[in-house]
Amino acid sequence: MPLVRIDLMEGRSAEQLAAIGEAVQRALVECLNVPARDQFQIVTEYFTGRLIYNSGYLGIERTDDIMIVQILLSSGRSVAQKQAFYARAAELIFQGAAIRPEDVTIVLLENTRADWSFGRGEAQYLTLPRQRWN
Amino acid sequence: MPLVRIDLMEGRSAEQLAAIGEAVQRALVECLNVPARDQFQIVTEYFTGRLIYNSGYLGIERTDDIMIVQILLSSGRSVAQKQAFYARAAELIFQGAAIRPEDVTIVLLENTRADWSFGRGEAQYLTLPRQRWN
Amino acid sequence: MPLVRIDLMEGRSAEQLAAIGEAVQRALVECLNVPARDQFQIVTEYFTGRLIYNSGYLGIERTDDIMIVQILLSSGRSVAQKQAFYARAAELIFQGAAIRPEDVTIVLLENTRADWSFGRGEAQYLTLPRQRWN
Repeated sequence: MPLVRIDLMEGRSAEQLAAIGEAVQRALVECLNVPARDQFQIVTEYFTGRLIYNSGYLGIERTDDIMIVQILLSSGRSVAQKQAFYARAAELIFQGAAIRPEDVTIVLLENTRADWSFGRGEAQYLTLPRQRWN
Repeated sequence: MPLVRIDLMEGRSAEQLAAIGEAVQRALVECLNVPARDQFQIVTEYFTGRLIYNSGYLGIERTDDIMIVQILLSSGRSVAQKQAFYARAAELIFQGAAIRPEDVTIVLLENTRADWSFGRGEAQYLTLPRQRWN
Repeated sequence: MPLVRIDLMEGRSAEQLAAIGEAVQRALVECLNVPARDQFQIVTEYFTGRLIYNSGYLGIERTDDIMIVQILLSSGRSVAQKQAFYARAAELIFQGAAIRPEDVTIVLLENTRADWSFGRGEAQYLTLPRQRWN
């Protein structure tokens, strides 16, 4: 269900991009109750001047390693779950792709179960029993 | 009012991209009460490894023909309208661009009428009478 | 807190892109109570046929100078604040980058304070006192 958009500066290897995607996905599975196979991610790389960020906002030291992870998912996660997710995602991204936690920016965005069609013109989260979400 | 983002793998012809856009727009008009001229779409193509998807989630067989259609629109559509839209969009995309319904993923995202400015610094959905929305 | 996505046709100079970003940010600060340093913007340029728009919807005359500005921010701004923002953003973009107000399309999208992590795996808007947001 989540649609993940990962925006970062150009210059990563394919391996590092894959490692980032896997780290985000694993944190979603562990902390936000996302099925393991429910992985849909869009990665975009930017030239200088196209991804603009403040390097010191809120006392965090950001560098050009910055990644902005926007995650669209159905509502229903608690604040505590979200906080656990941020911490775990930053940890796994550091372990898997060697990006400092200071450079990991995450934004969540919520919709509802009726807002998803995973193919065949159907709204699977309305029509499929929950046990079959995998 | 909808802002449509269509993400897919690189390699489509200009004609096929246009056909996809037209199919989505027609389904919006037919099923979600969108004015015909209210067409704003952003199409982005990706290299391998930049658009990541699970090929079997929820029992749907996806291929690299996958397209992810994200539609931002004002709230107010019923669940039944959304379901009709998914079915019609998949049908029209297949007819117009020969993309299998299994490869059509759709995500809706809602905001409010106050959240749109269509130019000149005005919030037209607040200031223009509804009869003039076309 | 806002995540700004600016989509426009290719062909701008680096200076003009920077001027657009600065104009949007200044309007956010002046009208929507955004801290000056809270600047996170993603700029994407498109080839013909990838950014599709209706040139006359709602009686506005749009050209290929069109820019679509999508702003994701926490909820809490009034309708009047949003209207002031649209007007001011269009004015500053015209002054700074010579883009006609007719070509400035703006869309807002809201989430909550719990939905942001600005680095280090923390949800700063929940854990930092408001006086320290800068």
